[in-house]
Amino acid sequence: MAQQFTTIGILAKQHDDGVRQTLKNLIADLQRRDKRVLIDEGHAEAANGVETCQRSELGERCDLVVVVGGDGTLLDAGRSVAQAETPLLGVNLGRLGFMVDVLPAEMIATLDDIFAGRFIAESRLMLSARIEKADGTRQGDAFSAINECVIRNQAFARVLDFDTYMNGDFISHHRADGMVVATPTGSTAYALSGGGPVLHPGLNALALVPICPHTLSDRPLIVDANHEIEIRVADTLDGAALFTSDGQVSQPLGAGDRVLIQRGPHDLHLIHPPGYDYFNILRNKLQWGRGQKMPQSS
Amino acid sequence: MAQQFTTIGILAKQHDDGVRQTLKNLIADLQRRDKRVLIDEGHAEAANGVETCQRSELGERCDLVVVVGGDGTLLDAGRSVAQAETPLLGVNLGRLGFMVDVLPAEMIATLDDIFAGRFIAESRLMLSARIEKADGTRQGDAFSAINECVIRNQAFARVLDFDTYMNGDFISHHRADGMVVATPTGSTAYALSGGGPVLHPGLNALALVPICPHTLSDRPLIVDANHEIEIRVADTLDGAALFTSDGQVSQPLGAGDRVLIQRGPHDLHLIHPPGYDYFNILRNKLQWGRGQKMPQSS
Amino acid sequence: MAQQFTTIGILAKQHDDGVRQTLKNLIADLQRRDKRVLIDEGHAEAANGVETCQRSELGERCDLVVVVGGDGTLLDAGRSVAQAETPLLGVNLGRLGFMVDVLPAEMIATLDDIFAGRFIAESRLMLSARIEKADGTRQGDAFSAINECVIRNQAFARVLDFDTYMNGDFISHHRADGMVVATPTGSTAYALSGGGPVLHPGLNALALVPICPHTLSDRPLIVDANHEIEIRVADTLDGAALFTSDGQVSQPLGAGDRVLIQRGPHDLHLIHPPGYDYFNILRNKLQWGRGQKMPQSS
Amino acid sequence: MAQQFTTIGILAKQHDDGVRQTLKNLIADLQRRDKRVLIDEGHAEAANGVETCQRSELGERCDLVVVVGGDGTLLDAGRSVAQAETPLLGVNLGRLGFMVDVLPAEMIATLDDIFAGRFIAESRLMLSARIEKADGTRQGDAFSAINECVIRNQAFARVLDFDTYMNGDFISHHRADGMVVATPTGSTAYALSGGGPVLHPGLNALALVPICPHTLSDRPLIVDANHEIEIRVADTLDGAALFTSDGQVSQPLGAGDRVLIQRGPHDLHLIHPPGYDYFNILRNKLQWGRGQKMPQSS
Repeated sequence: MAQQFTTIGILAKQHDDGVRQTLKNLIADLQRRDKRVLIDEGHAEAANGVETCQRSELGERCDLVVVVGGDGTLLDAGRSVAQAETPLLGVNLGRLGFMVDVLPAEMIATLDDIFAGRFIAESRLMLSARIEKADGTRQGDAFSAINECVIRNQAFARVLDFDTYMNGDFISHHRADGMVVATPTGSTAYALSGGGPVLHPGLNALALVPICPHTLSDRPLIVDANHEIEIRVADTLDGAALFTSDGQVSQPLGAGDRVLIQRGPHDLHLIHPPGYDYFNILRNKLQWGRGQKMPQSS
Repeated sequence: MAQQFTTIGILAKQHDDGVRQTLKNLIADLQRRDKRVLIDEGHAEAANGVETCQRSELGERCDLVVVVGGDGTLLDAGRSVAQAETPLLGVNLGRLGFMVDVLPAEMIATLDDIFAGRFIAESRLMLSARIEKADGTRQGDAFSAINECVIRNQAFARVLDFDTYMNGDFISHHRADGMVVATPTGSTAYALSGGGPVLHPGLNALALVPICPHTLSDRPLIVDANHEIEIRVADTLDGAALFTSDGQVSQPLGAGDRVLIQRGPHDLHLIHPPGYDYFNILRNKLQWGRGQKMPQSS
Repeated sequence: MAQQFTTIGILAKQHDDGVRQTLKNLIADLQRRDKRVLIDEGHAEAANGVETCQRSELGERCDLVVVVGGDGTLLDAGRSVAQAETPLLGVNLGRLGFMVDVLPAEMIATLDDIFAGRFIAESRLMLSARIEKADGTRQGDAFSAINECVIRNQAFARVLDFDTYMNGDFISHHRADGMVVATPTGSTAYALSGGGPVLHPGLNALALVPICPHTLSDRPLIVDANHEIEIRVADTLDGAALFTSDGQVSQPLGAGDRVLIQRGPHDLHLIHPPGYDYFNILRNKLQWGRGQKMPQSS
Repeated sequence: MAQQFTTIGILAKQHDDGVRQTLKNLIADLQRRDKRVLIDEGHAEAANGVETCQRSELGERCDLVVVVGGDGTLLDAGRSVAQAETPLLGVNLGRLGFMVDVLPAEMIATLDDIFAGRFIAESRLMLSARIEKADGTRQGDAFSAINECVIRNQAFARVLDFDTYMNGDFISHHRADGMVVATPTGSTAYALSGGGPVLHPGLNALALVPICPHTLSDRPLIVDANHEIEIRVADTLDGAALFTSDGQVSQPLGAGDRVLIQRGPHDLHLIHPPGYDYFNILRNKLQWGRGQKMPQSS
């Protein structure tokens, strides 16, 4: 990872007026520091003389990309710069995120720290998925995911039958609404809603979380992230199943189609302020220790 | 239920200095209204000329008992006045409870409403449990519970084997740490921690919630509260099991002992301020709608 | 309910060769008993001289309808005869169902019992739902459900925002994939997969089970079945939501649309053989007490 | 691990008559192969001329220990030979276990394979725990666990307050009945009953599973097994907490006491027959894919 940050990219949440002032302050500060600044062309109106850049090229051309927005904006940015493995710094809009952990009011002080080399660098594993059709052909390119890949029924009323494999070894047959394959980063997103555990981001593992399984003992399974996971839609599929990665890209799946998921070739690189504390964020976001006291005898 | 409240009992949380000022204000206000006031003898020091009364007699001698404390204090009070079915009004100490829903700052205004007949009266079902020893003899008196009865292993490492029955019909054999039989009131207490659902207090039902069951399909079961539930400890019990009601009374159980639980002869009567809203309390206590947003794509 | 069964309807699973022999035996037996037999016109080929009848008229014209198939076939039959409240007897095809509880080998003996008045009659509550569009108009007729009504997101990646009400009282705001409103009968179907409890069929209650809720404390809620439940899709809905009843009928929902669900005017009437035992069926179907022993120290 | 198995230890379930014939066959077969055989002195009566050996010395003196019994017997054996890291082969008594995977009828053929070098060797991580008292002194020796360490309340009615740390970093405060720290091997034991996921045995991870937590968002957390986990009982503890490892050893804990848990210095070594398939065992034990079909529409 670049230790010398000279060209700084900026990427912000679209259609959000709250972003404007933060962007203005950020640009002014970076210019004061004599950094070269490139802004995502989607924010040309805020550029005000700053050089714009296609989002897909931000990663290649910059040493650091500052993302202004929420976790969703950071996920989008993460996929855009994935290939270049450019580190990201997330500035939120008032509400702390899991990954977007710099408050606007602390942005300048945080940049002081970061340009002085005082920061915590963290890498998060990503997924790479490909679809092989029942007839052996390949469907589309590889799909990249930071949070999770999901396979599920489209017309929800029809339960989905599918088989799972790890490195070619049969795991089980499932009847369920679907299956989530989540990274540690994604373990606090959709997989958590489906009953999965929290995976610490330092763990090299994937969570396989069945959604609304018919068999009550069909519980989440955690495996080493170096294994390849295959999900094979039953030959008897009536209707259509759906594959999605990070809730963005979606692809229809037919009877006998296979989704192959493995740890991708690139990681997501995050830059955190010096005081970064994953568990503190987790406690805040999940409201741990804060409540839900239930009435019990004194 | 008495509609004319002339003799008012007072019962408060023990060993809590925060109670003192509220008690003083409460007594002064009731005297101003020319009510006869009786205070639990445990608070003689705060009585200051007010007539004291044994806790066990408060129910019989009063038309209304004001409870100052938390939900636990109200549970204690509820068991004390159960036989007399005296209504309770709960004044909390700053922190809202599930049942103790009057803020000290609103206490006087709430009493205005209540003495003017503007209140919401609610009754909550209670449980009555008795223990029959394996040899057919009875152990102790009937145990009364507002929240729940629990049967469980004492030395936790030894899983407990027991059978459940409804009106004499065999439900199932269980291997688990134990079993909770909860009222709707108790459904938001220990039973919720064990994976049970929330039962609306207006529902005449009981929740049977197994604690850490070995069989993953051994899920909570909800039955009509007019049925008698029996839990029978296996004849092979090695060591001791434990019965408790509302986490207060506890009784050892041996091999073949049976616990018989049914809706008790008395209800718990609560008086709420005019604006009482069960779901509002539930949302507050369970922090519904407030959070745990997880990072998903924008 | 008719106590004298003279006209017997027959309704069977479609496209299942295993049904044929059972149907033949059933018809022969009923004719031997001098019963009037009407067979669903979908099975005209098996009728062999027996009078056929439109499915929608079977309920009105018969005193008892024998259903040959699985639980799904019985659900279909149940909706068809709902208005007439004609009792149903379920004959399975080798595999016991929750409601289809007569084995083909025991069919004749069971009919002996039933025509001699030896049977257990049971009624199960059904749901009636209607949709009110955001503009105040009504969408379609009332929808009837034996198992459950479901509201959920269509493009799964988009979480659904909606509010719930009981008798007009606001319960909560939810962010989730959807919400199941289940009868006791449906509590062992989709609602169970979503984490709901088992409701005993004798309980007059509904289960509200959120599907993959964002808020981890958004737990199943059980309410008295005499209350009306309303689910209101958020005004901000982006895309479409979907309403379905018993996984059959499905209706799109838009921003601000409301679904109103209450106990329907008719019950489902079931006829069981004399030895009927709900808990025995539950133990068998959920494999209670049979296993999943986990390795623990001896 | 020894690749040449010349001295074979035998350890069997106590007080089980079913063991006797299998032991006899096993001894005869090993003698026929000219192996040196040592039998646990607890089975002296079955020894019949075979040299006996203290259980604690079996590991040091043997190249392979054959365990006849269930998973519990293998856990006991595993702790006994842990320091020597002697591989174990588990022969069950009719009922397949998670780790005891050789049927008596296949025992001789399996031994043919194993002595010919055809087997699958697997190592499972173990835990090492120590207790530090609030006053800084150490309590007892290190405790070794194959399945899990558990900290919990003793008088169940009193919820336990405790804090968790990972490598000294504060994770969270918990109010719960207790906490399980499980290995992948233990993830299918008590931790699964408490709502934890299945960890594949090849994963170098620990599961922290709170038991009946008050806070509903207090979900299982999975961390890398190279981290040290600390659980610190609250200073306000009223009564006693309990520490146990593998449900065997148990130690009282007082206010402020700390339990420090890390991956132990030794692994458990298992020898499996050539066809060993972890997922097949999992499917069998958890009855995956076999059932709990719920009644849904056809």
